[in-house]
Amino acid sequence: MQLKEIITLISAKLHSSDREKDLAKSISGVASLDKATETEITFLTNPSWRSYLDKSKALALITAQPMVEFNGPQLIHANPYWAMAKISSHFFSYTHHHKGHSDLAFIHPEAEVSPEATVFPFAYVSPGCVISAGAVIYPQVYLGHKVRIGCNSVVFPGACLMDGTEVGEQCIIHANSVLGADGFGFAPGTDGIAKIPQVGSVTIENDVEVGALCSIDRATFDTTRIKQGSKLDSHVHVAHNVTVGENNMLCAQSGIAGSSTLGKGVILAGQAGVAPGIVLGDNVVLGARCGMIESTDEPGQYLGMPAITAKTWFRQVAATKKLPDALKRLDNLEKKINQLLAASKPDATDS
Amino acid sequence: MQLKEIITLISAKLHSSDREKDLAKSISGVASLDKATETEITFLTNPSWRSYLDKSKALALITAQPMVEFNGPQLIHANPYWAMAKISSHFFSYTHHHKGHSDLAFIHPEAEVSPEATVFPFAYVSPGCVISAGAVIYPQVYLGHKVRIGCNSVVFPGACLMDGTEVGEQCIIHANSVLGADGFGFAPGTDGIAKIPQVGSVTIENDVEVGALCSIDRATFDTTRIKQGSKLDSHVHVAHNVTVGENNMLCAQSGIAGSSTLGKGVILAGQAGVAPGIVLGDNVVLGARCGMIESTDEPGQYLGMPAITAKTWFRQVAATKKLPDALKRLDNLEKKINQLLAASKPDATDS
Amino acid sequence: MQLKEIITLISAKLHSSDREKDLAKSISGVASLDKATETEITFLTNPSWRSYLDKSKALALITAQPMVEFNGPQLIHANPYWAMAKISSHFFSYTHHHKGHSDLAFIHPEAEVSPEATVFPFAYVSPGCVISAGAVIYPQVYLGHKVRIGCNSVVFPGACLMDGTEVGEQCIIHANSVLGADGFGFAPGTDGIAKIPQVGSVTIENDVEVGALCSIDRATFDTTRIKQGSKLDSHVHVAHNVTVGENNMLCAQSGIAGSSTLGKGVILAGQAGVAPGIVLGDNVVLGARCGMIESTDEPGQYLGMPAITAKTWFRQVAATKKLPDALKRLDNLEKKINQLLAASKPDATDS
Repeated sequence: MQLKEIITLISAKLHSSDREKDLAKSISGVASLDKATETEITFLTNPSWRSYLDKSKALALITAQPMVEFNGPQLIHANPYWAMAKISSHFFSYTHHHKGHSDLAFIHPEAEVSPEATVFPFAYVSPGCVISAGAVIYPQVYLGHKVRIGCNSVVFPGACLMDGTEVGEQCIIHANSVLGADGFGFAPGTDGIAKIPQVGSVTIENDVEVGALCSIDRATFDTTRIKQGSKLDSHVHVAHNVTVGENNMLCAQSGIAGSSTLGKGVILAGQAGVAPGIVLGDNVVLGARCGMIESTDEPGQYLGMPAITAKTWFRQVAATKKLPDALKRLDNLEKKINQLLAASKPDATDS
Repeated sequence: MQLKEIITLISAKLHSSDREKDLAKSISGVASLDKATETEITFLTNPSWRSYLDKSKALALITAQPMVEFNGPQLIHANPYWAMAKISSHFFSYTHHHKGHSDLAFIHPEAEVSPEATVFPFAYVSPGCVISAGAVIYPQVYLGHKVRIGCNSVVFPGACLMDGTEVGEQCIIHANSVLGADGFGFAPGTDGIAKIPQVGSVTIENDVEVGALCSIDRATFDTTRIKQGSKLDSHVHVAHNVTVGENNMLCAQSGIAGSSTLGKGVILAGQAGVAPGIVLGDNVVLGARCGMIESTDEPGQYLGMPAITAKTWFRQVAATKKLPDALKRLDNLEKKINQLLAASKPDATDS
Repeated sequence: MQLKEIITLISAKLHSSDREKDLAKSISGVASLDKATETEITFLTNPSWRSYLDKSKALALITAQPMVEFNGPQLIHANPYWAMAKISSHFFSYTHHHKGHSDLAFIHPEAEVSPEATVFPFAYVSPGCVISAGAVIYPQVYLGHKVRIGCNSVVFPGACLMDGTEVGEQCIIHANSVLGADGFGFAPGTDGIAKIPQVGSVTIENDVEVGALCSIDRATFDTTRIKQGSKLDSHVHVAHNVTVGENNMLCAQSGIAGSSTLGKGVILAGQAGVAPGIVLGDNVVLGARCGMIESTDEPGQYLGMPAITAKTWFRQVAATKKLPDALKRLDNLEKKINQLLAASKPDATDS
């Protein structure tokens, strides 16, 4: 990959003493400042690594600002960490140890599987499925009736995509996740609990990654939707009728209750939860173990249960630390004031 | 389905101007007030929808009280939401895209599978299993030694039912759940951690639904039991030796530690937890993210960690909001009182 | 099993009136004081059971101190509960209802499977795998490229061990767990979220047990490691680059974020969480639902979010209970002091 292609990939500016020559240089990979070889590109994301710059053998550097210590072409980018990830990702590709449609898979004759898709042994493909070119279906995957898998998407082993689930292009569904199981819709009554049939489905847009052991439940009527570019960690639960916005990051063991809607760029840290029917605006960030029970449009970080702004939460935590001592001070004050009242004139003691 | 059958199904009272004629009317389905057609039944669960009553085309209405605005037969039921769910559920049935016992399944010759049961390809049925009529075993399901599946129960793909697990009738086990894995029984010692063998089993009574990716662990000696009619959402953990009572609702990512016992009608909201050896009485409701560490017989809602009554918790949350300000007021009071003490007579300053 | 073998197994001291004869006695199993037969060994772990000692039929007793009430040989051990578990575990072994390498499994010709290992139908073994003697691979297990399974380890149904995962000897991996799925490494940018390739792996040392539905993610570069003797309950999440120390116990639904390191004998109670990059020293115990966001070397129990020492947490919980009342007392004090100030001399009212 030539340096000019990398510049296009990440939309960087080139800082160079010989543009023509540098643009044509060939890059073999990405590595850290101390480990990069003469054909690799490196990056500066942390100022404390600046001392490594003059000793680095790297062919080129990604940096937020030009660095005089580095002797070679520099790619100026506002977010070197993102740029590094983007380039690494370009050099990386999964190795799938199978090709073609295995005779040991079950592929229903009424399924439509691209000849350029891969289906491993023991995968189950139901009637009405459509699997596009470049898609890879691992062993023990279950694809229900009319499931659609877009181009180049990978479904890892044991994942179950129930009837009608639609997965976009360049998606990754990790092992043993379940998409499209029934939403939790029940009406309790004196004569037992009645099930509300869940006849909707699940839609996963392009470039979404779903971690291992996640559940995304089918909607009651319409569709539960994960919008483009969102990434889910492991054990994440998305309940029925939820919409997860674009480019969300939902960390491990977080959960979103029914009918909630998340804006763009929302982040849920580990073990966070969102109550039913909540609307979160763009760039809302729920901290670890946070429980959000109110809708909010205000971006920024929230913490606690019930969730409040991080700033307020840290103040409350600090205050609570002082509480046991404050109660003693309060006892003491009451004693003092009662002494004062006892000692003062009768007309002042009336409380 | 005739209106009189529906009345029997939900035990409703008919409010009608022409009983004979109305009872014989045929209903094709359930729909909301604005969407119901001339052959469908509708429902009023929310007073704000009352304005739709006179425009609705529905053949009949389910309502808690007779509504003059609706022109047609009315089914009077104390819980129209439950009644609606019950009828919807009656009209709905899963479509299973396979019939009979697949040659691509592994069915041990010593297993007893009803000819009226369905076994999909790649399901594994161990010796000693008994699968009753109407049961459906999806692909990649594992049924261990002597597992029993009752009539009309459905086991969705990838679910693992380990040795000796018993599932009742009309149960639904969603994808990738695990019933009967070893309970977490260990004795730590200076010479490592010793495993306590888990030789009990798991019993699921009739009409139970287990969500995707749940774990219900086998008992140490006896049985871990989910009683009739209970419903589990996704990612729910039920530890060894637990008894979940009748008609419980356990929401997503909630967990019950070992040897706890839940009464009837208990609800665990999302991400709630119950400590080991706890006994919860009938109709106890644990709110979201609540951690119950004491037994209680008192019905009603609990919140917080450690869990307290919802009323007390809301008071504490409100008070904690005021705490940082209260600490400042306390500082200020101390200053004032010290001034007063300094200004007062010597015999009053003794604290 | 002779009594002398049991004594060696648990390193106990024998308290006996006839050593030679007692050491040769044969034990058939372990049971509680009231249920043990004439050939079984029993144990006293709880002083309240002492009254059963003289009526017990057991052949021998495990106890922390000699008990005059028991008539027979006594094995003195500081931790009778651990000793009981150790012996029970010795008498117990799983029954696997299959032998040999099934023709219905997929075993790649470039995999190396010991003739003394068991592979069930529908298991998938990729090229480069090494499965050692005594290992058991259940149905619907997926073993990726170059996965290694040590002697006598059991992989229960539906577990997915992705490329390069290494499992030691005498390990148990319960159903539907996922080892080696990609770690959650992403760099958010204005132009979408870039994936950081996860090219490391997962290493499970000897005598580790992983519960049902756990995820242990592969490292970004190096390895995510679970050290010898650790036990994981169900739904546990171990993120990329984590090291779990020796003999840890991680209870259900607990989670460890990326790059954290746990010492020896660490315990995480149910639903506890550890933030990214945390270092926990030996014997740190995180209580239920605790969220640890700071590193600590101090052993002992922690609780709360953010986690603090259990002692401090219990004090804060008790103080918070009094808070709503304390605020009223504060209001009242302010009134009184304002009255006093109003009544006092002008030079004392200056606040």
